Amino acid sequence: MTGFFASRWIDAPPNVREAAGLPAGFRASGVRCGIKPSGGRDLGLLVSSEPRTTSAARFTRSGVLAAPVLTCMKRCELSALAAIVVNSGNANAATGRRGLDEAARMQGAGAMVARVPETRVGVASTGVIGVQLEGQLIVSGLAEARDELAEDGDGDFAEAIRTTDAFSKRASLEVQLPSGTVKLAAQAKGAGMISPHFATLLCFVETDAVLEPETADLLLGVCVKRSFDRISVDGQLSTNDSVFLLASGASGVPVAPESEDELRFGEALDALLRQLALLIVADGEGSARVGRVLVSGGDQDGVERVARAVANSPLVKAALNGGDPNWGRIVQAVGAALPGTAPLVLDVWIQGVQVCGGGVGLPFDLAALAEAVSKPEVEYTIDLPGSGAEAEVFFSDLSHEYVRINAEYTT
Amino acid sequence: MTGFFASRWIDAPPNVREAAGLPAGFRASGVRCGIKPSGGRDLGLLVSSEPRTTSAARFTRSGVLAAPVLTCMKRCELSALAAIVVNSGNANAATGRRGLDEAARMQGAGAMVARVPETRVGVASTGVIGVQLEGQLIVSGLAEARDELAEDGDGDFAEAIRTTDAFSKRASLEVQLPSGTVKLAAQAKGAGMISPHFATLLCFVETDAVLEPETADLLLGVCVKRSFDRISVDGQLSTNDSVFLLASGASGVPVAPESEDELRFGEALDALLRQLALLIVADGEGSARVGRVLVSGGDQDGVERVARAVANSPLVKAALNGGDPNWGRIVQAVGAALPGTAPLVLDVWIQGVQVCGGGVGLPFDLAALAEAVSKPEVEYTIDLPGSGAEAEVFFSDLSHEYVRINAEYTT
Repeated sequence: MTGFFASRWIDAPPNVREAAGLPAGFRASGVRCGIKPSGGRDLGLLVSSEPRTTSAARFTRSGVLAAPVLTCMKRCELSALAAIVVNSGNANAATGRRGLDEAARMQGAGAMVARVPETRVGVASTGVIGVQLEGQLIVSGLAEARDELAEDGDGDFAEAIRTTDAFSKRASLEVQLPSGTVKLAAQAKGAGMISPHFATLLCFVETDAVLEPETADLLLGVCVKRSFDRISVDGQLSTNDSVFLLASGASGVPVAPESEDELRFGEALDALLRQLALLIVADGEGSARVGRVLVSGGDQDGVERVARAVANSPLVKAALNGGDPNWGRIVQAVGAALPGTAPLVLDVWIQGVQVCGGGVGLPFDLAALAEAVSKPEVEYTIDLPGSGAEAEVFFSDLSHEYVRINAEYTT
Repeated sequence: MTGFFASRWIDAPPNVREAAGLPAGFRASGVRCGIKPSGGRDLGLLVSSEPRTTSAARFTRSGVLAAPVLTCMKRCELSALAAIVVNSGNANAATGRRGLDEAARMQGAGAMVARVPETRVGVASTGVIGVQLEGQLIVSGLAEARDELAEDGDGDFAEAIRTTDAFSKRASLEVQLPSGTVKLAAQAKGAGMISPHFATLLCFVETDAVLEPETADLLLGVCVKRSFDRISVDGQLSTNDSVFLLASGASGVPVAPESEDELRFGEALDALLRQLALLIVADGEGSARVGRVLVSGGDQDGVERVARAVANSPLVKAALNGGDPNWGRIVQAVGAALPGTAPLVLDVWIQGVQVCGGGVGLPFDLAALAEAVSKPEVEYTIDLPGSGAEAEVFFSDLSHEYVRINAEYTT
């Protein structure tokens, strides 16, 4: 299968094929409500017509939470969301009491157009931090968004959540389960080179499978940990990151706990979110390639810290951008992540070629390796002492464009 | 006093004036031994002629330690060093058993030319990681280095430890103490924009004061914590960082524990190392300005993490490069450093102008602030809940040159 599942690191499950449009029970739209100075689409609406729709959600762990995130956490029944209102162009973060009022207003207006209780409406925002959101623009825009709702509205919806994303990120899949066929779709935003005020990951997942809230929560939790939690763009955590999963149940196909259906559905969701996460890493002006670092050893905390240290190292990221097989920087990042453990015995491979064994540099064919690291996807493998623990992180390179976008942006 | 103490953040102590040459009892040299492909000076020798010379040292905490660092830790009497051999152009790191042998050979040759026991010879290296050091070059070079030893050899010595440093970093001071006048000198290397294989901080401090080893260790420890431990270039920790303090005692002026002499001497050492640390941050092609972030609050661990998160944030660093008073990025970095603490009430000032109060953006004169952050030194102040804890970090900006140097370097 080609197309959406383009990365060599993602295996497309055999029971999945690409489809179009939203799963049964869902309609969506994306309109222009006047927040973005560019006049682009900036308001998305997603509605399920099924009363028994279940849901699950995950949010940023930042100590500074945007108003829509606080609103979701405090004023939503997160296991029974039936509608989502999302805007781009303004993050509604660092906006205090007034920001919370505007997020509540957004939620209330969403409840009216979706004809569900307020507690069943999730809200999300992405854009500039520290500027008050004009809620009236959203209230007015929602009337148009309701009129535009369509079963194939996922394209407009995905457009409306973009900020600096160079391309729209979405997929629609048909998943064959033992108990029947279901649809699974997702729309995400987030640019590999996170840019000034617009540094946010949002993802909305819809399915027409019948999911108990507990199953939805479990599956989303596991898959987010293996996808959006495993990517590093610049080590920065947003105030607004949010991921939602809504299950309309309209297919009538149940995904029961610990069933073969759950296993197959989970595999499809996993591949979907991991590929979307990789698209986020790959996005961004100037981004030349995507790196994957895989660390194994005896200490889970240690391998985790090393993987993130390598993925976040500006020296490693700049080398990745330049296609430079510079393993000294990797060793340095590893050492810095594990202070006080010297002498550390480690092995390092780049694209399968061992460059360091037992902590000592090995001879290798520099020209061949330089060629190998000029590919769009570059893999780094690090073995630390011990076994049984493993961690993987996907990361973007550090480019001139990153500096240009982030230095020359004028407030 | 102008000249060396150029930063507004460093108060030159009133009892200090700039001088020239090394303190009494010391001679130094810097020669070409053939390690650097450029043919530049790459071997430094520092020797004290005073048998009672005392010393102290501090090393990187990386889990991957270079051979010279391991050699200093295991084969030196660190409280009684009387000579230093240092090379640039090769870090002798990730070089295994053979690297240790070469470091020992370097130490042995140093002992011969300095006429002191091997255990009294400190060694240091900086340069490419993972390439074996040709110790014979150093052994041969040391004969010339011995012949060149001079009381004003600190200039050549400082040259010989440079790698990508855009300028040589050293100072020579006369310090008036109640018990008499002493000299204090230092030579350092380390470039603000740490570059591929050459990412190391080295600093050598000499004085002719009479210091007990315990006093030397205490003073060096405190001053390193307030200087080289408080700078962030790119969050990377080197395999080779080393700081040495040697006290010849040739002035005959004692610096007794808990005396007024110790207080005054400590102030001078503190100012000296802090200014050198700032020069390291300011160095590097493309570096436009230096930032200082000062965080206060009730939790020492928290303020420390926030200060380092802001200083290491590529978004904040890129904004500093562009002279952009972009406080949303600061709030984001703070939130990311303190997960799970939402809602976090914080105040933020940039160059003394409050831009965020109680977690909410405040109106400010954007044009005036943009002008203020275009200065060579930019100050960020962050107040977290509580009081009693404070942390400061100095940091460099993220420039196009950083990416160019680190991406286009060819292994």
